[in-house]
Amino acid sequence: MIETLADLGEAELLRRLAGFAPVGQLDDDTACLGADPRPLLVNTDVLVDGIHFSDGTTAPMDAGWRAVAANLSDLAASGADHVDGITVALVAPGTTPWSWVNGLYEGIAAALEQHGGVLLGGDCSTGSQRLISITALGRLGPLRLHRNAARPGDVLVTSGPHGLSRLGLALLQNDRHLPDGDLPETLKAAAVAQHRRPIPRFDALKALVNCKPAQLPWRAGGTDSSDGLLAAVQALCSSSGCGAELDYARLPRPGQWPLGEPWDRWCMTGGEDFELVLSLPEDWAEAWLSALPGSQRFGRITANPDSLIWSGDHAAVELSGSGFDHYRSA
Amino acid sequence: MIETLADLGEAELLRRLAGFAPVGQLDDDTACLGADPRPLLVNTDVLVDGIHFSDGTTAPMDAGWRAVAANLSDLAASGADHVDGITVALVAPGTTPWSWVNGLYEGIAAALEQHGGVLLGGDCSTGSQRLISITALGRLGPLRLHRNAARPGDVLVTSGPHGLSRLGLALLQNDRHLPDGDLPETLKAAAVAQHRRPIPRFDALKALVNCKPAQLPWRAGGTDSSDGLLAAVQALCSSSGCGAELDYARLPRPGQWPLGEPWDRWCMTGGEDFELVLSLPEDWAEAWLSALPGSQRFGRITANPDSLIWSGDHAAVELSGSGFDHYRSA
Repeated sequence: MIETLADLGEAELLRRLAGFAPVGQLDDDTACLGADPRPLLVNTDVLVDGIHFSDGTTAPMDAGWRAVAANLSDLAASGADHVDGITVALVAPGTTPWSWVNGLYEGIAAALEQHGGVLLGGDCSTGSQRLISITALGRLGPLRLHRNAARPGDVLVTSGPHGLSRLGLALLQNDRHLPDGDLPETLKAAAVAQHRRPIPRFDALKALVNCKPAQLPWRAGGTDSSDGLLAAVQALCSSSGCGAELDYARLPRPGQWPLGEPWDRWCMTGGEDFELVLSLPEDWAEAWLSALPGSQRFGRITANPDSLIWSGDHAAVELSGSGFDHYRSA
Repeated sequence: MIETLADLGEAELLRRLAGFAPVGQLDDDTACLGADPRPLLVNTDVLVDGIHFSDGTTAPMDAGWRAVAANLSDLAASGADHVDGITVALVAPGTTPWSWVNGLYEGIAAALEQHGGVLLGGDCSTGSQRLISITALGRLGPLRLHRNAARPGDVLVTSGPHGLSRLGLALLQNDRHLPDGDLPETLKAAAVAQHRRPIPRFDALKALVNCKPAQLPWRAGGTDSSDGLLAAVQALCSSSGCGAELDYARLPRPGQWPLGEPWDRWCMTGGEDFELVLSLPEDWAEAWLSALPGSQRFGRITANPDSLIWSGDHAAVELSGSGFDHYRSA
């Protein structure tokens, strides 16, 4: 006998969900955060069943973890060095098993345990489709990263490889586009792990703050690669009124990554790797690359608005297109 | 030719939505709120099409207004005297007309214009059902209202009449349970207005703060009546380990409200009137009732945990049941 949300009723559901928050945290109409002298950063992300996760590829714990990681990644990519917590709006049909919701909140709690912050509050409602909308709150550290702060001559760097999450999804879906040849087991394991349990890169932000050359101002362009590496670069360029030259040889490919189609495309537009994508003055970029294992330089910011070109001559893939469009693909 | 979200695509949708926020507000991965020396209050509410609103009874502008009002009401009922703003997660199928989304955000903007705060950020996704999840952020004033701060001997008061929103819904639905006899036009107009454009009671909170007798501490029990008057009283009692005696003659009925079924029930459990429901020491209650037109005293807090009884002898309606359960009614 599967215990569903309709069996529980709303009051019992809320009582059980309160068990994932500090004692008394959900008792009032609002959550209260103590005064902090630093500016507050806020981010909201919504994840919808069948679009951002699905039972076929994502265990409920992983869905919860990824929802939190997606939000915290935005905080990290904006310069937050402290997470206050999150609110969670849960929508699910009455037929949803409690075990699914329980797993979801276990994943949420695990991600918060790892990265800081608590479940501050939330709401729940029935609806035709499972989804969670999370709002994350954090405190700004010494560096505010802006999308519009890229400048011509900056170096484009990222905190890690790209494409793993997309490969992980393909593996979990038994995607028929996967190549016939065997992939290395270590690559497959890394890809599935990256898809299921992405890591918001607070460590990479910390390294960035710690390695800033003293003579440089606190100016750096930044975003995360939730919508893909190319979309991140396009966002930086578009907001900053700049362009970019990408170095094909230095695309941040994962180790043991094959060449050609679909691999370059997955690296550039796969999305959901949640790495930092930064535009930095040369000296700061060099310092960061030295300080952070796995980070990589892959291009340069130019003065040509919205012009994205390859800096080398290879023509292996067309440098166009962008990330995933929820609406057009719907 | 109706312009749908699928016609627009996500980038154009986001560009248009940014027009409802301050210039540049949605440019980054997060919103940044300036440091404020006061504690921050946070609340999340989700409104789902077919449950919390529907095209039949709610114009898109009204759905937007109500979503904001529901969230700000929670801030007011917790003691916030300043609204920083909101984030909005919008989920809607690709077939949704842009005009509906535009109306929704016009209603959101109108409510913020009226009560303070700006659109701080958000997210959007396609999904099978329209819904919005709003997180509101505000700053605590001198009084933190808690659900668990009711004390035996306190007077139960509320900022206004109850049942209007439920009547408004019935009128908009041409509910067959409506009585045959004609209702006064002024009552019908007030009911529809209360359903479409509820007002978060920041004014009532301000009056409460301003009229506190000097000898009393800053202790008051409080919540809002989003889930109905009786549910609000039950929440105060349950959190505070108290009970309540309600005065049938003093139920906060709207003017010209008929007696009997369903009128008493709608007054007690109709929900969505978004009034403050407070548990106050006698002197403070009297001061507030004098200061705030439309406010009403309707009962008293007792020392009997979770016991809700009528203080008079009338037996007109059973004092049981509670608000709406999204899951059980699904």
